[in-house]
Amino acid sequence: MKGKPTIYDIAKKLNITAATVSRALNNNPRISQATKELVLKTAKDMNYEPNKLALALKKGKSNNIGVVVPYINRNFFSSVIRGIEEELFPKGYNVIISQTHESAEREVDIINNLLNAQVEGIIISLAKFTKNTKHFEQVLKKNIPLIFFDRYQEMGGVSSVTIDDYQGSYDATIHLIEQGCDRIAHLTVDPTLSIYKHRLEGYQQALIDHSIPFREELVVKLKSDMEEGKRVAENLMALENPPNAIFSTSDYGALGAIKWLQTNGYKVPEDVCVVGFSNEPFTQFLDLSMSSVDQVPLEMGKMAAQVFLEQVNDGNNVKIEKKVVLSPSLIIRQSSTKK
Amino acid sequence: MKGKPTIYDIAKKLNITAATVSRALNNNPRISQATKELVLKTAKDMNYEPNKLALALKKGKSNNIGVVVPYINRNFFSSVIRGIEEELFPKGYNVIISQTHESAEREVDIINNLLNAQVEGIIISLAKFTKNTKHFEQVLKKNIPLIFFDRYQEMGGVSSVTIDDYQGSYDATIHLIEQGCDRIAHLTVDPTLSIYKHRLEGYQQALIDHSIPFREELVVKLKSDMEEGKRVAENLMALENPPNAIFSTSDYGALGAIKWLQTNGYKVPEDVCVVGFSNEPFTQFLDLSMSSVDQVPLEMGKMAAQVFLEQVNDGNNVKIEKKVVLSPSLIIRQSSTKK
Repeated sequence: MKGKPTIYDIAKKLNITAATVSRALNNNPRISQATKELVLKTAKDMNYEPNKLALALKKGKSNNIGVVVPYINRNFFSSVIRGIEEELFPKGYNVIISQTHESAEREVDIINNLLNAQVEGIIISLAKFTKNTKHFEQVLKKNIPLIFFDRYQEMGGVSSVTIDDYQGSYDATIHLIEQGCDRIAHLTVDPTLSIYKHRLEGYQQALIDHSIPFREELVVKLKSDMEEGKRVAENLMALENPPNAIFSTSDYGALGAIKWLQTNGYKVPEDVCVVGFSNEPFTQFLDLSMSSVDQVPLEMGKMAAQVFLEQVNDGNNVKIEKKVVLSPSLIIRQSSTKK
Repeated sequence: MKGKPTIYDIAKKLNITAATVSRALNNNPRISQATKELVLKTAKDMNYEPNKLALALKKGKSNNIGVVVPYINRNFFSSVIRGIEEELFPKGYNVIISQTHESAEREVDIINNLLNAQVEGIIISLAKFTKNTKHFEQVLKKNIPLIFFDRYQEMGGVSSVTIDDYQGSYDATIHLIEQGCDRIAHLTVDPTLSIYKHRLEGYQQALIDHSIPFREELVVKLKSDMEEGKRVAENLMALENPPNAIFSTSDYGALGAIKWLQTNGYKVPEDVCVVGFSNEPFTQFLDLSMSSVDQVPLEMGKMAAQVFLEQVNDGNNVKIEKKVVLSPSLIIRQSSTKK
């Protein structure tokens, strides 16, 4: 046998599958106690990765990874979770999910209760109102891998997986300019949050690159729902020089805008092109399908899980801080395609 | 002081709020250790409910309740979870969610891993392919409250919260008959599952009650997605005596049917009325809003949480089996309203 022994070497020696060895080492409840003990003993005899073995031998291993999101019922978050599960389930991990409903106070409770549940890692997208990272210090102190995705704050020793919001917004705005639009409104949710700040910057840069003057009155803040989109569209179209395109950082806002335009004598996309952000599933069910920026959530979830696995495999003595930035993907549909 | 002491009596004695007493007794991490000890000591001195006190004193109390669903990204399930959280969060409980993706094998793993995480209760809607309840025996053995919702199997000592699927289906069919429809197709997902069986029976009874002959060719099985709905609509409209109404137990199936009808020269609702089931959010976003049976998920979640709390409060010595059946609510929109 050359090099370090692997689970395949253990499997061969015991005449069982590598998957069974892996599960036994991960303390998977589907493996009998007798098999677990045999695998652990053999692994020890063969000097198989002592660090990992120590982990598996440790009492109280839960197999659970905590995933924390603002809401489970947003397509973006549920798809990220699917990606995480697709990576971690085959490795014997179970994913347990909690939602903060955007409450910082609830987020603190959740982190504490996940530690009570002895999770082996936490993958989290921060609540909108989370202003500090104090509640994560205990996680790091316990050497539990912590990974931020999408919404994050800078924190030493913590990895993150995000998308390039600037790029997504830049691409959408360029697409609208190429459709002949030169008065493009930008609907934002909260420009103090970094993701929305970057989207505003991408929009502005696209205008600059095509010598289109920036008009402050065309940047409007809204809550992410359909009624707000209607209200905002009405105000925008009442301007002296109304927009001929609306780029909304919220799909629900974009939907409301389309509904208002259509019921008030405007044609979409002929009079006003509309592009949303997030690629919610309903965007393709509409009679007039809606263009949107896809945030590659499945890929993001898989990447977050891979970063977690790297940290686990590197053991407790190494501090890793990895920043992964994925490229979003503009999906062009009827709402912004002039014939 | 008359009668048994309450948390208000403890709060008064210590000059703190009742909420703080409740949190301290529930081992909430937001309460300092010093306060917890003071509250526990005072409660003991006052002879406050010894059973509950014993629970709070017990080591390893996690505050976590496990909720298990097939998919988190179905509106029905995410709304049930919201209902559960609304009841349990104020009581100091944290909800951790897992999804089975309809796999019975994964469901077994999840239950074992939730036990690893020392959850204090499990509220679950069974995976489609779960055929036995063996994996729940360990839960009952540990005296952990177990509650089924929506999809369940009969099991001694286990409570359940469901909706009256028969009634929901009966009401939808009667509504279609009242719109003048006499050739009503019924799209079902899996008539071997009890919820779909009951829906088929409700449909059949409504026909009987209005002397409309049952035609087997009008009952069609489909997977719950849009493409299947299109395929099924095409087949149905090719019948010698095609339907003038489609009642689908899947909103996605109903959506596909509407899309196919509209692109093939049929008017909805004039030529064919359509009603779905589940009241998915997209049903109201469509240009032609879709009628659907609402499964009152928020109410179902709250009820499941209340049943859990009753079991916790009654302590370990009482076995409770409570069956709650809620009434669904038919939401009538454009797709089945003839002018």
